Amino acid sequence: MEASQVEFEHPRKAFGWAARDSSGLLSPFNFSRRDIGEEDVALEVLYCGICHTDLHMAKNDFGNSIYPYVPGHEVIGIVAEVGSKVEKYKVGDKVGVGYFVESCRSCQNCIDNLENYCPKHILTQGDKHIDGTTTYGGYSDSMVVDEHFVTRIPEGLPLDGCGSSSLCWGYSHSPLKYYGLDKPGLHVGVVGLGGLGHMVAKFAKTHGLKITVISTSPPTKKEEAIKNLGADSFLVSRDPDQMEAPKETLDGIIDTVSADHSIVPLIGLLKSHGKLVLIGAIEKPLELPPFPLILGRKLVGGTLVGGLKETQEMIDFSPKHNVKPEIEVVPMDYVNIAMQRLAKADVKYRFVIDVANTLKPTS
Amino acid sequence: MEASQVEFEHPRKAFGWAARDSSGLLSPFNFSRRDIGEEDVALEVLYCGICHTDLHMAKNDFGNSIYPYVPGHEVIGIVAEVGSKVEKYKVGDKVGVGYFVESCRSCQNCIDNLENYCPKHILTQGDKHIDGTTTYGGYSDSMVVDEHFVTRIPEGLPLDGCGSSSLCWGYSHSPLKYYGLDKPGLHVGVVGLGGLGHMVAKFAKTHGLKITVISTSPPTKKEEAIKNLGADSFLVSRDPDQMEAPKETLDGIIDTVSADHSIVPLIGLLKSHGKLVLIGAIEKPLELPPFPLILGRKLVGGTLVGGLKETQEMIDFSPKHNVKPEIEVVPMDYVNIAMQRLAKADVKYRFVIDVANTLKPTS
Repeated sequence: MEASQVEFEHPRKAFGWAARDSSGLLSPFNFSRRDIGEEDVALEVLYCGICHTDLHMAKNDFGNSIYPYVPGHEVIGIVAEVGSKVEKYKVGDKVGVGYFVESCRSCQNCIDNLENYCPKHILTQGDKHIDGTTTYGGYSDSMVVDEHFVTRIPEGLPLDGCGSSSLCWGYSHSPLKYYGLDKPGLHVGVVGLGGLGHMVAKFAKTHGLKITVISTSPPTKKEEAIKNLGADSFLVSRDPDQMEAPKETLDGIIDTVSADHSIVPLIGLLKSHGKLVLIGAIEKPLELPPFPLILGRKLVGGTLVGGLKETQEMIDFSPKHNVKPEIEVVPMDYVNIAMQRLAKADVKYRFVIDVANTLKPTS
Repeated sequence: MEASQVEFEHPRKAFGWAARDSSGLLSPFNFSRRDIGEEDVALEVLYCGICHTDLHMAKNDFGNSIYPYVPGHEVIGIVAEVGSKVEKYKVGDKVGVGYFVESCRSCQNCIDNLENYCPKHILTQGDKHIDGTTTYGGYSDSMVVDEHFVTRIPEGLPLDGCGSSSLCWGYSHSPLKYYGLDKPGLHVGVVGLGGLGHMVAKFAKTHGLKITVISTSPPTKKEEAIKNLGADSFLVSRDPDQMEAPKETLDGIIDTVSADHSIVPLIGLLKSHGKLVLIGAIEKPLELPPFPLILGRKLVGGTLVGGLKETQEMIDFSPKHNVKPEIEVVPMDYVNIAMQRLAKADVKYRFVIDVANTLKPTS
């Protein structure tokens, strides 16, 4: 579709930043949003987190990107307008929008509040909505979303620090909970010290877990991980000796890394009955040795963000337990540099775009 | 060690059949068994099942075989003598010996009745016992085993049909139970129609599961699987169309195949939250695509036989629910032909050696 058509396909004017091709470079972009339906909430975007998935999709790493592509699925905003049948929100409420904005509402997963696993769910960014138009994410001034897919941000959470909430908090907590790794005293490894990894570590600490951070980062990061995140120990994953010594000591591992890497040494770190949970969007097939799984009754599984109910529970849980992401707030026009730094894991631990104060209209 | 030394390293004379090298061919073999200790049971072997693992180890497929190698870890016998402190068994009792004959007795797995996952457990065949001597399996006239590693065979089970019990029944039931796949109404796939597969299918039916058998066998086997095992449907795994059609329909899959094969199409058959459990001793690393695990919260795990407590429970459960393995009883000197047929999956569904009536002393 021509850019000019995108600008007028819906009645509400909108603007943001979009990637135009697989260079992944973002630039200002005029488009439009649908009119609010009876159950829709319109929100003014305040902040939006930058996730590694945004980078993957901007560069068409998964081969299915739709351009122009407006990233952003870690959105914090203020309700600006509500449809006639909206029940949960009113104008002025602080809300979040996460990884998806629609699902079929009738399959078993939807009935079980697991919309994240509904085969027909529609992603917040770079997907096709029911009407066939492209979905544009939160690197933009405004959004229109069905209230079912909106979460409430409670008092006590700094709004900028919520940027990564709607996604990360469901994502960070769900693997611990679903795989039974949230029991006090368990020893859990967290692979990767990025946006997801540091939040998994923080949630894990609230459950009284012992945490080992496993990272490619140089040993100088060790002290920081231990101090900032409360990690109990630190392994440099590129050092075979370090990875060999604590063999068979972990009850579980949450692997948040989306870059290619081997899971074989990670499986070796697990005790019998240990669980390796993948949550990073790894592209290439992994090598899986079957014997350790059989001989040790180990498993390799995955989880995808959280459903709406679980995400809301986690967001409500966070201020009570003082769990907040560590972030670096950046202006909108810094986004391409931020993406470059993210690709090099040069961020502690999440970039959040200050959309409301730095996104300037292009016309 | 010289064969002559093996014959006299322990005080009790014994004979059986052993492989001498990686040709895997078995021939008569004189050796010896230890004297019975205070907690030991000596048993006269009646029957012994032939497992695919026996074939793998006879041919040194895992690279760690010790020759001469006497296979056999599906042993049924009669108690011939008991040590002074044996409490559970008396002379004349019908008993079984499974996959291992010793463990550390002190680790968490041993405390939890999961001796099968004790890192120091000692295999019934081709392993080194505490005293450093080699363990010899049930393709032999007699065994001496600590009573803790012996199971009782209840009335109501045909003894020849028990051949595969001590191993298979723990192995066949444990994956369903541990992974929560034993709930009525669930739809479970069973990959492989061998000794393990047919027992998994039978156990699954006792739990009211819907069963799909997935096999490389030609379609002519379909009717047989449906009639003999009560399978509800049948997929030929070599037919991509058949494997594609029921995509995302299974709650779980128990994969009993030890030959190399891809698990990618199996993962595709699983619903979201579905579980693929490997119990066949596959040698080569598998290709694991991470996206289906993450997007569908699926998992790939394994299990290894059962602990002693679980194995006894399953053996007791079987006659009450009329679960019996389908077997082909063969004489001892047929073992090399049986191994050849097993390699071609030409058996319904388990060979059992009639040891007591057909093993002839060599001197």
